[in-house]
Amino acid sequence: MSLAVFGSVGLDDIITPEASVEGVVGGSAVYFSLAASLFTDVRLAANVGGDFPAKAWDTLRARGTDFEGLQKFEDKPTFRWSGRYEGAMNEAETLRTDLNVLIEQPLVPESYKDSKYLFLANMAPVTQLEILQSFPNATAFADTMNLWIEHERETLERLLELIYGLVLNEGEARMLTGEHNLLRAGAALQEMGPEVIIIKKGEHGAFLFTPDGRFGLPAYPVENVVDPTGAGDSFAGGLMGALAEADDFSMDSLRRAMAYGTVCASVTVEAFSTAGLEAASRTVIQDRYDELRDFLRFS
Amino acid sequence: MSLAVFGSVGLDDIITPEASVEGVVGGSAVYFSLAASLFTDVRLAANVGGDFPAKAWDTLRARGTDFEGLQKFEDKPTFRWSGRYEGAMNEAETLRTDLNVLIEQPLVPESYKDSKYLFLANMAPVTQLEILQSFPNATAFADTMNLWIEHERETLERLLELIYGLVLNEGEARMLTGEHNLLRAGAALQEMGPEVIIIKKGEHGAFLFTPDGRFGLPAYPVENVVDPTGAGDSFAGGLMGALAEADDFSMDSLRRAMAYGTVCASVTVEAFSTAGLEAASRTVIQDRYDELRDFLRFS
Repeated sequence: MSLAVFGSVGLDDIITPEASVEGVVGGSAVYFSLAASLFTDVRLAANVGGDFPAKAWDTLRARGTDFEGLQKFEDKPTFRWSGRYEGAMNEAETLRTDLNVLIEQPLVPESYKDSKYLFLANMAPVTQLEILQSFPNATAFADTMNLWIEHERETLERLLELIYGLVLNEGEARMLTGEHNLLRAGAALQEMGPEVIIIKKGEHGAFLFTPDGRFGLPAYPVENVVDPTGAGDSFAGGLMGALAEADDFSMDSLRRAMAYGTVCASVTVEAFSTAGLEAASRTVIQDRYDELRDFLRFS
Repeated sequence: MSLAVFGSVGLDDIITPEASVEGVVGGSAVYFSLAASLFTDVRLAANVGGDFPAKAWDTLRARGTDFEGLQKFEDKPTFRWSGRYEGAMNEAETLRTDLNVLIEQPLVPESYKDSKYLFLANMAPVTQLEILQSFPNATAFADTMNLWIEHERETLERLLELIYGLVLNEGEARMLTGEHNLLRAGAALQEMGPEVIIIKKGEHGAFLFTPDGRFGLPAYPVENVVDPTGAGDSFAGGLMGALAEADDFSMDSLRRAMAYGTVCASVTVEAFSTAGLEAASRTVIQDRYDELRDFLRFS
């Protein structure tokens, strides 16, 4: 089923303990779409500058992505993020953020408005709210970040009352609810509006909270973590892609989608930038899904 | 089947963000035995002082524990540990350790020596090696700690060549192998001797490494963590108790035992000291086991 994503296209500079790269392809909408497009057709909406390499779209184009919502600003630079990972690489230290074209309002094509599924990647809650109004029939999921929890809390709370699902990391869940325990944080977030809450725990997996119950999943075990950038957006892309493909929001379908999400994240972290997801196929994803199920199986 | 455990009996002073207790029952052999005795008969060996409350043994006695290896030093105080937990309560800060009767050699009763299963809780590797020599026919598992990894590495390495299984926490696994990634640490530990490696990750569960494959398990989700003291020893007790009961070291049996271990740990952390494990029954454990399996299930 039709899945629209609004988020960022970026160029990243990444420093890890092993290596560094500059100006590589990134951005939430890119990671999300590369993962989701392994499952379903994606409608991508994002602002991009004149400096973004055209060939970066080849894989997504081959996977049937709709680019009508890609708004190009020829004379401006693409969003740029510079970050560094140390030690366990659990968390990025942001060295620099240049919003550039991200300060422009996103484009919402008429042709996207009948999308059945919508993902609002991390951006200002006021912008998420505006976009959401164009999708009256969509099942909408959103991500957010500490910046908005701290400075745009009221707007974020209005958004939470309108979306079906919220995807956020454990630090954000604790910050938004004031609950350290993640089970209590999940319950508190459900009280704030969304039917479905997904708390991402990085290398420790993710929790799912629904009115029908809870589900927990460790991350797919990866021996060589090269670059964690985009893991969360890849998780969300795999999750939403699998849900849209199944067109089913039952607990069983959500459990499966969580597992596809963690598998997509595992592919992302094994290489810099989007190389892992670009090289992946549905077969690779299914093999890892089966491996994960076997890894976790007990009777 | 017969399961012998060598470890500590202790009196603990524990400070948590919510409350404090002084002189409560603790020690690795006590937590281990309370968990393991839910599955099988346990032979307990430990040194205890004259100040240890006799009624602390009531539950274990009722569960058929053999106390022949409990060596009482009437004129000396019991091992005492004081620790504090803060914030997420992931790690205890040790405020004080008084070894007291733990400096005396443990007693190895003749009647224990035919035990089929043996657990050597954390203690000096040289003592673990000495005890192990009295159990030529036992399948032996051992725990260890950072102190021995740092200062008694050679002796510890000799022990690793002789035991069947090693149970340790993630920090110790990294320290012993120099590998940050836990999958690589697990593989490196297997190279050091033991067939079976179990890496405990606290609230994030545990990994199992065997020649037949790997297994991962998140912790049983607990909403109210009151006191994490003894969680690791309770995990080991549930694990070894379930293995000894099944008398089966197949991968499937090890997977089940890991799940029983995490369930026993969840019962421990919900109350101070041994109150959780003392109140637990096999039915409670089985209910949580079934809940955990359902929590993790995806198809």
